[in-house]
Amino acid sequence: MAEPFRFDARALRQGPVPKPAFRSRREVRFHEIDAAGIVFFARVLDYVHDHYTDFLASVGSPLPEVLAARSWAAPIGHVEVDYFEPLRFGDELTLILAAAHVEGSRVTLAHQVLRHASSRVAAVAQTAHVFVSPEGFRPIPVPPALLARFQALPPAPG
Amino acid sequence: MAEPFRFDARALRQGPVPKPAFRSRREVRFHEIDAAGIVFFARVLDYVHDHYTDFLASVGSPLPEVLAARSWAAPIGHVEVDYFEPLRFGDELTLILAAAHVEGSRVTLAHQVLRHASSRVAAVAQTAHVFVSPEGFRPIPVPPALLARFQALPPAPG
Amino acid sequence: MAEPFRFDARALRQGPVPKPAFRSRREVRFHEIDAAGIVFFARVLDYVHDHYTDFLASVGSPLPEVLAARSWAAPIGHVEVDYFEPLRFGDELTLILAAAHVEGSRVTLAHQVLRHASSRVAAVAQTAHVFVSPEGFRPIPVPPALLARFQALPPAPG
Amino acid sequence: MAEPFRFDARALRQGPVPKPAFRSRREVRFHEIDAAGIVFFARVLDYVHDHYTDFLASVGSPLPEVLAARSWAAPIGHVEVDYFEPLRFGDELTLILAAAHVEGSRVTLAHQVLRHASSRVAAVAQTAHVFVSPEGFRPIPVPPALLARFQALPPAPG
Repeated sequence: MAEPFRFDARALRQGPVPKPAFRSRREVRFHEIDAAGIVFFARVLDYVHDHYTDFLASVGSPLPEVLAARSWAAPIGHVEVDYFEPLRFGDELTLILAAAHVEGSRVTLAHQVLRHASSRVAAVAQTAHVFVSPEGFRPIPVPPALLARFQALPPAPG
Repeated sequence: MAEPFRFDARALRQGPVPKPAFRSRREVRFHEIDAAGIVFFARVLDYVHDHYTDFLASVGSPLPEVLAARSWAAPIGHVEVDYFEPLRFGDELTLILAAAHVEGSRVTLAHQVLRHASSRVAAVAQTAHVFVSPEGFRPIPVPPALLARFQALPPAPG
Repeated sequence: MAEPFRFDARALRQGPVPKPAFRSRREVRFHEIDAAGIVFFARVLDYVHDHYTDFLASVGSPLPEVLAARSWAAPIGHVEVDYFEPLRFGDELTLILAAAHVEGSRVTLAHQVLRHASSRVAAVAQTAHVFVSPEGFRPIPVPPALLARFQALPPAPG
Repeated sequence: MAEPFRFDARALRQGPVPKPAFRSRREVRFHEIDAAGIVFFARVLDYVHDHYTDFLASVGSPLPEVLAARSWAAPIGHVEVDYFEPLRFGDELTLILAAAHVEGSRVTLAHQVLRHASSRVAAVAQTAHVFVSPEGFRPIPVPPALLARFQALPPAPG
């Protein structure tokens, strides 16, 4: 069994990928801070998943409707995050869905978390989703509208 | 429409109610802290609900089974919390289900959150649940095993 | 010791208070749902606190700066929430800081949580803050800019 | 710059490593579930971090004291998780700190998340910490008591 696909986090750290990567903004909240005074590391994955659901809505597949219609599911099989700079209460962030790597039913997404003011990449996350039928959890092709949008993302750096 | 029932939070602040009130222990976690360096106030309700589910399990009605069997539901209609002392990372807590007030399908529970070391009451929470049928959400009597246990709690102080 | 001030939650349920009440929008997120399939009740207080920090920023007192400058603190002494309708994944919400009741250093805020589509009030929350000096935690007057804005909110219904 | 060290997640999936690996128990909570009805994937990292702080306490370095004394800090530079089976409300879990890989100031920890009933490994997480001085954030040697305990963990499988 081969090693799973991974993006080059250090290349993704160099700077924001150009449009048409999907972007949204958010702010670090009071209750996302930990006892060390910075964003608790796992909350970055909350940010990334919120951004992913915004992306799904932007391509006409809002996740609440997908779940209600039992159209498909895309459970996460692997995630990883590289943290380059701590995030603090009040930091304005830009989230970027930077790249997608499609292999059959498996899609690996690269996410950049930037400080909005400096455009510096504070973290790079990767999430690997497997598209399956909601009943039986059998692998299925990536739905065409999603596939087209994944393929329209800029090529990953590195 | 009458004012809803409320326990006397200041009386509940005076000290832990005696057994057989239901007790459990927990510790304040690293990621429950907010940007002001204390437990985020809403997390106290997470503690209280975890303790409530432990109570349900202790009386033979574990909530995962109740939900799976669609036996009953008890959505929360009202909560309140009085905060007397801040909680900090590493604090050992004692949770006490201190009292229950039953009026038909509506049960109001009083919860004490103590610092274990000092037995001081750091917060008092109240949660009002309405027992309903899972289909139709019509009020139903409190299930007998639960009712008996609620009625066996010590009388509320105050 | 007198009973603390409370707004009339049932009056606040009737509909959104008019402007210039402070408003923001947000959406129910995938990870805010509980095992019963609705928003976990305590998350409503996360929403309310985020909205409060947005309010502070809108009146020139962003909480990150307030904390860094140690200008003042306003710990929460009491909260309560009345839940009228469950919230579900994907629901678009409007948060309204609806009213403020000032008694010396103590400010009680009323918050409405509306479903944006229907303008129905799904929950009403109340948070009581005590303004104190960051050192020593002695009660202090409400900072003038905040006080003016609190007093400019519409009178509470009921 | 070389690829960072990684444990073999598939080898760690085969079964629990033997003692003296550090173990603790916990239960999946009502509010850790997401809109798809399983544990939100990022909460597994909350579990893992709680277990890590329990480990630190067990070796005489409770994190609240470490933070208060400003003895050292060990910010997380990289995490990854492989998810093999979904976790559901009420599942009893065993957390195992399974292995440690030390390279100078950098320690990579392997964590197994098991269903207690079946001893099946539902997830494997890896967290890479860099030990630094709390002032200046310069790399420092791993504190000796911690280093000894890390080195006493069983060799990683695979």
